[in-house]
Amino acid sequence: MSAQPSRITAVDTYDIRFPTSRELDGSDAMNADPDYSAAYVVLSTDAGDGLEGHGFTFTIGRGNDVQVAALDALREYVLGRPVAELCADPGSLHRDLIGDSQLRWLGPEKGVMHMAIGAMINAVWDLAAKRAGLPVWRFLAEATPEWLVSQIDFRYLTDALTGEDALRLLRGGQNGRAARTDHLLERGYPAYTTSPGWLGYSDEKLTRLAKQAVDEGFTQIKLKVGADLADDVRRCRTARAAIGPTVRMAIDANQRWDVDQAVTWTNALAEFEPHWIEEPTSPDDILGHATIRTRVRPIKVATGEHVQNRIVFKQLLQAGAIDVLQLDAARVGGVNENLAILLLAAKFGVPVCPHAGGVGLCELVQHLSMFDYVSLSGTTEDRVIEYVDHLHEHFLTPAQILDGHYVAPTAPGFSAQMHKKSIATYSFPDGTFWTADLKTARAGRS
Amino acid sequence: MSAQPSRITAVDTYDIRFPTSRELDGSDAMNADPDYSAAYVVLSTDAGDGLEGHGFTFTIGRGNDVQVAALDALREYVLGRPVAELCADPGSLHRDLIGDSQLRWLGPEKGVMHMAIGAMINAVWDLAAKRAGLPVWRFLAEATPEWLVSQIDFRYLTDALTGEDALRLLRGGQNGRAARTDHLLERGYPAYTTSPGWLGYSDEKLTRLAKQAVDEGFTQIKLKVGADLADDVRRCRTARAAIGPTVRMAIDANQRWDVDQAVTWTNALAEFEPHWIEEPTSPDDILGHATIRTRVRPIKVATGEHVQNRIVFKQLLQAGAIDVLQLDAARVGGVNENLAILLLAAKFGVPVCPHAGGVGLCELVQHLSMFDYVSLSGTTEDRVIEYVDHLHEHFLTPAQILDGHYVAPTAPGFSAQMHKKSIATYSFPDGTFWTADLKTARAGRS
Repeated sequence: MSAQPSRITAVDTYDIRFPTSRELDGSDAMNADPDYSAAYVVLSTDAGDGLEGHGFTFTIGRGNDVQVAALDALREYVLGRPVAELCADPGSLHRDLIGDSQLRWLGPEKGVMHMAIGAMINAVWDLAAKRAGLPVWRFLAEATPEWLVSQIDFRYLTDALTGEDALRLLRGGQNGRAARTDHLLERGYPAYTTSPGWLGYSDEKLTRLAKQAVDEGFTQIKLKVGADLADDVRRCRTARAAIGPTVRMAIDANQRWDVDQAVTWTNALAEFEPHWIEEPTSPDDILGHATIRTRVRPIKVATGEHVQNRIVFKQLLQAGAIDVLQLDAARVGGVNENLAILLLAAKFGVPVCPHAGGVGLCELVQHLSMFDYVSLSGTTEDRVIEYVDHLHEHFLTPAQILDGHYVAPTAPGFSAQMHKKSIATYSFPDGTFWTADLKTARAGRS
Repeated sequence: MSAQPSRITAVDTYDIRFPTSRELDGSDAMNADPDYSAAYVVLSTDAGDGLEGHGFTFTIGRGNDVQVAALDALREYVLGRPVAELCADPGSLHRDLIGDSQLRWLGPEKGVMHMAIGAMINAVWDLAAKRAGLPVWRFLAEATPEWLVSQIDFRYLTDALTGEDALRLLRGGQNGRAARTDHLLERGYPAYTTSPGWLGYSDEKLTRLAKQAVDEGFTQIKLKVGADLADDVRRCRTARAAIGPTVRMAIDANQRWDVDQAVTWTNALAEFEPHWIEEPTSPDDILGHATIRTRVRPIKVATGEHVQNRIVFKQLLQAGAIDVLQLDAARVGGVNENLAILLLAAKFGVPVCPHAGGVGLCELVQHLSMFDYVSLSGTTEDRVIEYVDHLHEHFLTPAQILDGHYVAPTAPGFSAQMHKKSIATYSFPDGTFWTADLKTARAGRS
């Protein structure tokens, strides 16, 4: 008798919230008081190797419980799956979840349910890479083009990207992989920092943090804009004075504007030479971005952190609406959908500069950009990964910055695993931090 | 001392599921086995008039619990609100929910959270209309243009529709309102029926139901297509033979195709003169619909039941991607967002033919089309509301069809209220139907 194959034996979920709103970290024109949070999932197995798959959706507070409910609704699809089979083909779970006709009604492929699917899929990739003893970026970079293509759902993409296109692009990326891998391990991947630019910061703090960013080797910073034009003029002037003429300064409106307003406001800041305007309007407004782009040149247009899926990215590229594609590791349907998005960007020749920050987004997204460099784009020119220095201490293998570059991760997995103690402390509302906090609040009221 | 104003005292939610999959009702190319369901909410007050506000999101089974969790997350925004104030300005709640910066991260304005917001908002409109003693369509038709405009969020719309545009359109619709109201009360609003056309039905059943539809006075039927082309050719031929050359026959692919496939498949059915092709591809693919439309003329292109919000509708209209706009009463942000969508359609001169069926969608959507006729479009030409004869018996004031027309509702409210007994029977998993069903299933296994 042969031994039974190892299976997924538990799918545990957690509502983890950090009280970031108390410091005004992360404040922008649309998000006044975010409490950075994670709807978090852990896959356990009976393989006996102690390895778990960790994944999460990033949220900014309220509604994190709904996101956890969505993860719970996916449990039955994952529990009991043979581990080796699942890890050899994460696409099989991706197809089952995206293709479930009843769950599909809740999107399709957008919002709460789609983000939960992404978290679950990413947990499988974390587990698969750990079992292979590789960080996700190398796990992907060492896979064959044929296998990578098998991981992608081309539905709704074929008018812009077919399986044959994808195969051609990935085969083209094979040349020089080893040298690029070595280069990454040695030098890392260029980063830019948003830490100086939150709306809630004083000019003094902005100047200090902007200078510090340049000293630390960053060649690009980013400022939040969009709440008040006079303030933005002053803040952009302050930042430009602090960083000098050659360091790039991006600006980010976090969807604050309608189309005409985006054009007027952005052009009013043109004298400070912003490198790109990020999220000038609704992430759903493909045609709006296309209009804005033609009217703010030479300032580039960037979006993506709230783009719901590959179908919207496809159209942003078809419409010539963006200069910079900012994929997010935890909003779309996991690594599988992000492979499609990286390939779309490669097909259209648009650089990918991922969104990061929040909780754990830096940790995840570095793997996608590094794979992109090694196996697809072959360059880091005009490409930077966002970096924000928040909450990394909660991760076992936090993202690391050296001389303005992400250090290439070497630990197996997706860098997604939080410390047990962080989970226990910040679980909402029963973790030790929140229990104590609630007690204090009660005492304050009485 | 003045009396305290009445307040919302309870926000009760229910996970209601009907076992429709057992009859293959509702089967189409993407939805093989739907269990029509409702994430249902009831607002109670201490006004002492016994009136409640009822609202719901329609789903097709799994995930209905996630939708209920999203409703539960909104409870705190509604509980305790002064009833008179809320009902005088449902837009105030709409703004609070859509504008909540933390909840917004879960969309923005799409998927599970947005649909829950729509259900909650619609419950308020149900209550407001009941308190006014009017069906929602008359409650809207008797409001001033200025008040209606105050209910709309124009954010992200102003490049296509401004508040001034809306006011002009609504003022233009004032002329002849009384006569159109009388006409509706006398004749009703034209309907078409999807009941003959489900994929799971035999040709014999298709023929019988199609003939029956014509006998009952319907001038349009609809067929599901997209699973198998040879089958579709046979079924379209069968249906056309049954209804004759003058009755309209729409076809509906439920998002089954990529762009090129949509064109080929639709044109392969052209000899049967389909009136429109519905949901030929992803509801997110604005540019795809525009391409399809130019390549399947003179067959019209229709979509909307899965369109996530007003911003996507705006672009479908801007891109000339649709001939028919199929709004849904329970997917977007409630009556408030549907007012914006009706106004967008009016501005672009595209007829609105709402999606219905499921659970209670016929009941809701008739109010929106009737308001559109009385106060905005002023015509029913080329306009029909979908009708499917399922599950109406669970509603206190079910939608009624007479001679192929929706009978204008006269009962106060949004026709959204289910019988208490239906809720008790079909609540999942603890309702009497599901408890008994589970017991039978257990017995069958043992």
